[in-house]
Amino acid sequence: MFDLVVQGTAVLPEGVRDNVWIGVKNGKITAIGEGDAPDAKEQHKVTNGLILPGVVDGQTHACSYGGLPGIESTTRSAIAGGVTTLVDMPYDNPDPLNTKARLDDKVRVIEDVAHADMALYATVAPGQDVSEIGALIEGGVVAFKISTFESNPTRFPRIQTPQILEIFEALAPTDIPLGVHNEDQDMVHAYMAKAKAEGKNGLVAHSESRPASAEMSATAQFLELGAAAHAHAHIVHLTTARGFQLVDNYAFDGYRATGELCVHYLWFDPEIDGEELGAKMKVNPPIRPGEIDALWEEILAGRVGFISSDHSSWPIDNKFTPSIFDAGAGIPGLETLLPCFYTAAEQRGLEAASLTAEMLCERPARFFGIWPQKGGIQLGADADFAILKNEPQIWDSAKAHDDLKWSPFDSRTFSVTVDRTYLRGQLAWDGEKVCNAAGDGGYVRRGDSNWFED
Amino acid sequence: MFDLVVQGTAVLPEGVRDNVWIGVKNGKITAIGEGDAPDAKEQHKVTNGLILPGVVDGQTHACSYGGLPGIESTTRSAIAGGVTTLVDMPYDNPDPLNTKARLDDKVRVIEDVAHADMALYATVAPGQDVSEIGALIEGGVVAFKISTFESNPTRFPRIQTPQILEIFEALAPTDIPLGVHNEDQDMVHAYMAKAKAEGKNGLVAHSESRPASAEMSATAQFLELGAAAHAHAHIVHLTTARGFQLVDNYAFDGYRATGELCVHYLWFDPEIDGEELGAKMKVNPPIRPGEIDALWEEILAGRVGFISSDHSSWPIDNKFTPSIFDAGAGIPGLETLLPCFYTAAEQRGLEAASLTAEMLCERPARFFGIWPQKGGIQLGADADFAILKNEPQIWDSAKAHDDLKWSPFDSRTFSVTVDRTYLRGQLAWDGEKVCNAAGDGGYVRRGDSNWFED
Amino acid sequence: MFDLVVQGTAVLPEGVRDNVWIGVKNGKITAIGEGDAPDAKEQHKVTNGLILPGVVDGQTHACSYGGLPGIESTTRSAIAGGVTTLVDMPYDNPDPLNTKARLDDKVRVIEDVAHADMALYATVAPGQDVSEIGALIEGGVVAFKISTFESNPTRFPRIQTPQILEIFEALAPTDIPLGVHNEDQDMVHAYMAKAKAEGKNGLVAHSESRPASAEMSATAQFLELGAAAHAHAHIVHLTTARGFQLVDNYAFDGYRATGELCVHYLWFDPEIDGEELGAKMKVNPPIRPGEIDALWEEILAGRVGFISSDHSSWPIDNKFTPSIFDAGAGIPGLETLLPCFYTAAEQRGLEAASLTAEMLCERPARFFGIWPQKGGIQLGADADFAILKNEPQIWDSAKAHDDLKWSPFDSRTFSVTVDRTYLRGQLAWDGEKVCNAAGDGGYVRRGDSNWFED
Amino acid sequence: MFDLVVQGTAVLPEGVRDNVWIGVKNGKITAIGEGDAPDAKEQHKVTNGLILPGVVDGQTHACSYGGLPGIESTTRSAIAGGVTTLVDMPYDNPDPLNTKARLDDKVRVIEDVAHADMALYATVAPGQDVSEIGALIEGGVVAFKISTFESNPTRFPRIQTPQILEIFEALAPTDIPLGVHNEDQDMVHAYMAKAKAEGKNGLVAHSESRPASAEMSATAQFLELGAAAHAHAHIVHLTTARGFQLVDNYAFDGYRATGELCVHYLWFDPEIDGEELGAKMKVNPPIRPGEIDALWEEILAGRVGFISSDHSSWPIDNKFTPSIFDAGAGIPGLETLLPCFYTAAEQRGLEAASLTAEMLCERPARFFGIWPQKGGIQLGADADFAILKNEPQIWDSAKAHDDLKWSPFDSRTFSVTVDRTYLRGQLAWDGEKVCNAAGDGGYVRRGDSNWFED
Repeated sequence: MFDLVVQGTAVLPEGVRDNVWIGVKNGKITAIGEGDAPDAKEQHKVTNGLILPGVVDGQTHACSYGGLPGIESTTRSAIAGGVTTLVDMPYDNPDPLNTKARLDDKVRVIEDVAHADMALYATVAPGQDVSEIGALIEGGVVAFKISTFESNPTRFPRIQTPQILEIFEALAPTDIPLGVHNEDQDMVHAYMAKAKAEGKNGLVAHSESRPASAEMSATAQFLELGAAAHAHAHIVHLTTARGFQLVDNYAFDGYRATGELCVHYLWFDPEIDGEELGAKMKVNPPIRPGEIDALWEEILAGRVGFISSDHSSWPIDNKFTPSIFDAGAGIPGLETLLPCFYTAAEQRGLEAASLTAEMLCERPARFFGIWPQKGGIQLGADADFAILKNEPQIWDSAKAHDDLKWSPFDSRTFSVTVDRTYLRGQLAWDGEKVCNAAGDGGYVRRGDSNWFED
Repeated sequence: MFDLVVQGTAVLPEGVRDNVWIGVKNGKITAIGEGDAPDAKEQHKVTNGLILPGVVDGQTHACSYGGLPGIESTTRSAIAGGVTTLVDMPYDNPDPLNTKARLDDKVRVIEDVAHADMALYATVAPGQDVSEIGALIEGGVVAFKISTFESNPTRFPRIQTPQILEIFEALAPTDIPLGVHNEDQDMVHAYMAKAKAEGKNGLVAHSESRPASAEMSATAQFLELGAAAHAHAHIVHLTTARGFQLVDNYAFDGYRATGELCVHYLWFDPEIDGEELGAKMKVNPPIRPGEIDALWEEILAGRVGFISSDHSSWPIDNKFTPSIFDAGAGIPGLETLLPCFYTAAEQRGLEAASLTAEMLCERPARFFGIWPQKGGIQLGADADFAILKNEPQIWDSAKAHDDLKWSPFDSRTFSVTVDRTYLRGQLAWDGEKVCNAAGDGGYVRRGDSNWFED
Repeated sequence: MFDLVVQGTAVLPEGVRDNVWIGVKNGKITAIGEGDAPDAKEQHKVTNGLILPGVVDGQTHACSYGGLPGIESTTRSAIAGGVTTLVDMPYDNPDPLNTKARLDDKVRVIEDVAHADMALYATVAPGQDVSEIGALIEGGVVAFKISTFESNPTRFPRIQTPQILEIFEALAPTDIPLGVHNEDQDMVHAYMAKAKAEGKNGLVAHSESRPASAEMSATAQFLELGAAAHAHAHIVHLTTARGFQLVDNYAFDGYRATGELCVHYLWFDPEIDGEELGAKMKVNPPIRPGEIDALWEEILAGRVGFISSDHSSWPIDNKFTPSIFDAGAGIPGLETLLPCFYTAAEQRGLEAASLTAEMLCERPARFFGIWPQKGGIQLGADADFAILKNEPQIWDSAKAHDDLKWSPFDSRTFSVTVDRTYLRGQLAWDGEKVCNAAGDGGYVRRGDSNWFED
Repeated sequence: MFDLVVQGTAVLPEGVRDNVWIGVKNGKITAIGEGDAPDAKEQHKVTNGLILPGVVDGQTHACSYGGLPGIESTTRSAIAGGVTTLVDMPYDNPDPLNTKARLDDKVRVIEDVAHADMALYATVAPGQDVSEIGALIEGGVVAFKISTFESNPTRFPRIQTPQILEIFEALAPTDIPLGVHNEDQDMVHAYMAKAKAEGKNGLVAHSESRPASAEMSATAQFLELGAAAHAHAHIVHLTTARGFQLVDNYAFDGYRATGELCVHYLWFDPEIDGEELGAKMKVNPPIRPGEIDALWEEILAGRVGFISSDHSSWPIDNKFTPSIFDAGAGIPGLETLLPCFYTAAEQRGLEAASLTAEMLCERPARFFGIWPQKGGIQLGADADFAILKNEPQIWDSAKAHDDLKWSPFDSRTFSVTVDRTYLRGQLAWDGEKVCNAAGDGGYVRRGDSNWFED
């Protein structure tokens, strides 16, 4: 007898299929059938909705502000948003994840307090040699990340070119990507100084103060260093179509290169939303005017690796500054990721269900080497489900589950609502509350799947 | 309770997977699971072998010699070879399938005598207008075929260019391909006359008498007519790498064009096998010297649509002529198709199991619009299985099931043996004998899948 | 001292240049200078005009009607149109040029009666073997031509595919192209019969009766045969952009393939000019509706080999038939070629002078292996000049020099007028009359230039 | 009557031609003829040699060491090497050419002391705004240059990314390229520090201390900044095939990007020549091991913009340091440029004469907008000739004309010798001595030719 059977219309790897049942035993999907559901200890039938694989958010900053304890609320919010696995960035407060010891600490906290499963990025500190990389890989990290821009001297420092090459060379024999926060520091400082000097303010000014050229300059330099080392170079957020085309040139030349998009670049435009949102929509690199259509074309052309939230657990307080240049960057986004992307795809007349499963579940899982364990409703996979109901909602961050209680998406209408989330066969979100326990989430290690060979 | 559960290592669309069970009810796959198998009226556990989807042979000539009654023995042979669906060519003896009335007749015979499922090609006779095409499509035919070479004035006539264009124009609004036997009649006649005049004989001479240039000339002309009509042009057998590259140029230019390969072009070389086999390996277009490696490269480059048998039900008698030019063309091949391709792929170090499922099951099913009903082990599909055991065999056509009892593959070693065949959940071949009844096979109509859009 | 110095604005290979003098001795250009002209026996200064290289018309039918004597009037017309070299087609009346003996005859007549220089195509008759090809090449022919359509059983017969391949194989080791009149005979017959049966008439009906598909079908077949033999395949007239793109695919695949355009396809449209002109604008393949813009794009993309007149010396009488299908095909065009192309280029805002020199002089000369002797104003070249004056004219064929006295271009305005023509340093046309003597023209043999290697 | 006529085998734009005479009046080529030469005040007949256009060296550092007075000896050396125009870099000692006032000074010195013609690069100093750019362009400079690596804080400083973009934006509306010395400073410092710490020395160590990755990283960043501004980005020296391929990607994407090669990268290999030459062959970026064949392939593929000397007027003293890392970088090369490239091309079996004229004369002239005044033997051009005699020589820098008297090419055999140099019709080098006067050279302003549109 199954522990759980979920029944209804499901998004399987081969497509959307009605009248499916999914049998779960010991947290794994052990059978998929259609027609009458077999016996199970627990049954759930989806009538007016859709069974998706649990979302894999490829870019979360759970611990940027509150440190490792931030994992609890961040994963709670994830679960409420249908995100069953999140890939956490290494820029933890006060110290980034750059050693095996810190990895062990973080894994310990995950096992203790996480509501969702977590995979982890590691980093290398300025001046640190590459000797920890092997132990971190053995410890299961799925990727490494560095930045070409210093957001914080300790937590989020700038890595200079010689060290970037050194890290690439250390990772080259592996499948593990080196991701980059891609902004040219000198250019951003210069443009920001100019904007400040001119007394500019607001979201359009912020966008101009970190121009696409600054992003592209850092991107090109990083890609070429990756190519020089024959390593996998990954750009964690590209905000322009040109960015994805440049990445594609490297792929065409036979190098391993990928680019990622965050959902807000598909939703907000500074010239349209800037006045209303101000610093509430400040992210780095910034949202760009008039770029949304071109970015969708990149998705349809297959040049976007996957789509993520870039969720940051910042309290709203750091946004209330007279000048936008003094406000913190980053937004909460885990709980809105799934309904937001689904809604945007649907509004464009695309097949929202299968595109969501592809860009938010399957592709990030493949990218981080955790497929087929995560990312698809298939035999042997973890029984992670995000169940949507066909019920529009107006987003209200007051009801969010991340302790932050603010969002740039407030008052936006989504066409669907996350009705239930299952993590490894266990009901974790019932549409009203997060109902699994802190510590029911766990640590996910990199597995065998390979983005470039599969 | 399931009617049948088959258990073991299975080739699913997502890959080869151990310890799988497949539940069947009313002839359909209604569940796929792993681990302990559920209850069923009938159980079969594969221990030293592999569960493949039933093979879909995209090119069979069941009725070329014996007329419609030939269906019985041909499908019997198919079943013994793991082929559960065969797509039959329209060149029936004495009259080809070119009207709705003949389609009805053929379907009736299929329902009466077939051991395997059958989908059907139709054709248009010289001078016949296109008025029957609509009724034939409504009658469920999966494709149309014509020839640029006359093998027989009634059964297998030559269609001239104006009529080819007319048929293409009639089919252009649909997804239905027009296939072609692609040889330039004038060139073949000229080269054959020259070879005869020079007193040549043997398989190498046959190959030279129908040169690649004759095949390519007809191919180029046909592809361009298809392009002019914006219809789907399909070459039913290309024997050279150049052929697949030419097809690919049309695809690159935005036209619908595909090319098919037959398994013997991957196995035999006239300069190596010609002396032993002579007319027993005479097929049209002929096998070519030194082309096998290049054809495998086309497969790996994704330029080969799918692979078929081109099985013809000719008695061996028509091969015993003093001159190879007087011998009949065509070979039996249904029963050897699966073990032959699997063995050849394995010998090249390729992943034989998944490549076989792709080229012999999934791709032909998609091509003929009968996916997902046929061609894959997946929910809702027909429960058609070919079960291989890991036991080498030396082919002996004396034991074949087609009443023909001859084969160019005699004495060749295959690395696997077809152990069982299930057709829509029913055991049809038990490794010793065909055990389903004539008439258990049925007619398969074209469905919704679309080669170019899926 | 020079025999002749011509002075003025000249189109040199490097571009248009003012105040140039060109010194001629013994019929050759022996110096080019600027500024004050040196002494010469004869001086000509161009003030309101342009010195172009003499035009090389790559496609003339001088002898289709009147046989070899037709050379006299045809070359007279050429000279009056600034055409100093014409490449004559082999379809002479009553017998085509397919043997060394006929080549000798034709050369003899040229030496006797030609006003312009002539290079020659040869052909191969149906059933003729390739044994004359060597002697013809040694005799200096610049190209071979066959047709896939029979216009006349003896003079302009259809060559079948086996023979096409045979000729290609004979030419493959050389640089010499095999050109083709590219229409599928069966298709044209079928479509024409249909049009006749429906009682259609007029130029639009003629265009439809020889559809682009018939042209493309023959083209594709021919190109592939050329590719099979690794010979140079040339399409003597393509009427659609698709045609040039198909040729380009062969070039991209590494085969020697080229396509030619005739000037009337850039000027007339059956839906615009059909009612006025009727059979007077009947050519094969026909002019197409709405294709002119796309053809110019092919020119600018570099996919058009060169541009020719396809001049035919038909009397107007054979155009006066009740049905357009009974009218003769072909038009006089030598005398209008240069002003027509120049005017059309100018109207599109292109650099008419240099484009004319490229498409009407340099490229055909290179193509037929007679560069640098012909086609460019450069040291050592024959002193062939076409001098244009910037004076518009309304074409009036009553004043033409070909004895035919009719033209589809009648009443069309050209922006320039051919003021003088020099052939090998001798004034041949003075703006009023052809002033060189019959026999001052000569035979031009293929030289060393190579279209694909230069 | 001509002032001068030079006669013999000449490399004209259309190819190499025997028995040519070139007539010169007032320093310009006013006629080109063949056969008997016309009268002239001065006649020179080349019997065992070749008349080439005077070489245009696209990269000279005449004033790096001795300041503006360095022009005298540098241009003397140029003339002796057949270089009639040199494009001088802006990094003059003590102050670079970054203002109109300094341009005026330099032009004045040129007019006073130069033996050859000179075109000029300008630069922009760190922190300097773009306000001088307009005046410099009006003053006739042919290009701008900056460096991403500081060789000297004043003379040869590093420009940071924001300023690079600013300069690109100022130049974007023009045809004027911004060139870059392309090495990543941080990487070079890191790798050099490492090499020093490990006690390495020698030319191989120098090459490793400035790895290709440092060069490519700076190149990619610079190209992308150029693309962002839609300006013309030029890499003044690429040392690897990858470099030219990267540039080509930008061209393919529709951006203006070019790359230049210096002749020593085609001649020396650190693993072969390092032990003998040591710091005498130290240049930045360094010569690379095993790259020569790949660079020739780039030339033949058309991806190399042109070839230059990168001549630096350093005395040999600054090479005699115990560590190669303390030695000065740069070599004299003007006098060896022409024979060296010619010899290397000939040794590869290439058509040395026309390839030399293309890569050393025509292409740099087109690039810097001084074509057709410079770079080709054609009407109206300056009468600049380099006359080679077919006489091998062993290079001996003791006889050089640059006051430096050292060269890495010492004892290398060149297959040709510069026999004469003419500058604007005046004999400047007679094979024994520089015979024109200081001040006979002049300043060459950018003209109208356009690299991307011609």
